Amino acid sequence: MKNELKKYLERFIELSDKESDMALQFFEYQKFPKHTLILRSGDICSFEAYIKRGCAREFFTDHKGNEHTVEFAVEDWWISEINSFENKVPSQVSIETLEETEILFLSLESKKELLEAVPSVERMFRIMMQRHVHVLKKRLLQNMSRNAMDRYLTFLEQYPTVVQRVPQYHIASYLGISQEFLSKLRKRAHQ
Amino acid sequence: MKNELKKYLERFIELSDKESDMALQFFEYQKFPKHTLILRSGDICSFEAYIKRGCAREFFTDHKGNEHTVEFAVEDWWISEINSFENKVPSQVSIETLEETEILFLSLESKKELLEAVPSVERMFRIMMQRHVHVLKKRLLQNMSRNAMDRYLTFLEQYPTVVQRVPQYHIASYLGISQEFLSKLRKRAHQ
Repeated sequence: MKNELKKYLERFIELSDKESDMALQFFEYQKFPKHTLILRSGDICSFEAYIKRGCAREFFTDHKGNEHTVEFAVEDWWISEINSFENKVPSQVSIETLEETEILFLSLESKKELLEAVPSVERMFRIMMQRHVHVLKKRLLQNMSRNAMDRYLTFLEQYPTVVQRVPQYHIASYLGISQEFLSKLRKRAHQ
Repeated sequence: MKNELKKYLERFIELSDKESDMALQFFEYQKFPKHTLILRSGDICSFEAYIKRGCAREFFTDHKGNEHTVEFAVEDWWISEINSFENKVPSQVSIETLEETEILFLSLESKKELLEAVPSVERMFRIMMQRHVHVLKKRLLQNMSRNAMDRYLTFLEQYPTVVQRVPQYHIASYLGISQEFLSKLRKRAHQ
């Protein structure tokens, strides 16, 4: 049942049979029909999900009601909203299955216990997160635009000290807009 | 000299004084004037950099020659191109200082030795990467558009099996374009 996950773990870390059996015990198997919402935006994400078979997507709905797909996950990928999961805050995104999908779920409690029981699994999660950073960055490089005011306000929130410290053209470039448009946004934001 | 990093590590993991002294030995301190290119796109990223003081930005130059800022990093942030660093492949992005900047650098070799010497640091890296995933995802949610053909080709490369398995409107939504535009792209890509 959990053979795929065992092989997956062994790609990243060395595990004795005893350790991998122990690790797998913390995961819970579930099978879902196509189009099951396994995370609803606004809820707290209670899992990191390893896809054993099938396909899922993560999406969000913007303020105009349009849906945007953020990521897909197929066999051997993980899907979760990590900030919601780790910090128990409401998720901005939803996750749904697109096919009949078999998942191995890890809850926050089980993850803690797993990392206590088999500390080397920490490395697998670290590397998995690095890959996720890489995938997201690649996607980001290709996607720079839209909703400039929202992006500007988020920028101020995320980098409150940067706005005074770097030239405006770098900020415009971060936001994917012209300097002229940035100064319009600034005026509007501070009105 | 390395007090900030010590405090930073202690936010994530419990370390004895001996362990944190040991950990800090693997980092190399360097100070740069404003506007120093510490990573040039096309080169292999040789570091994960902890910003002790100052400000840096990561940027890339598109095929039209336009620069896009991907991220900023200020005190207590890390900056690196993790895929280039871990897999020794050329970086797509460049990194430059925007102010006089003091950095604690970790090389790949030192990172390996550090993780051997102080295994609990693995947790710090895992959590740091999770935060990075969160920041990138937030930024991505606000940035969906532009260069649709490039995005489509990357999508095919990244998810070769997905294109046959999910409805076209989900793929259009992932790419941030209409279904009509997607079918135009498909025709053009397969010509």
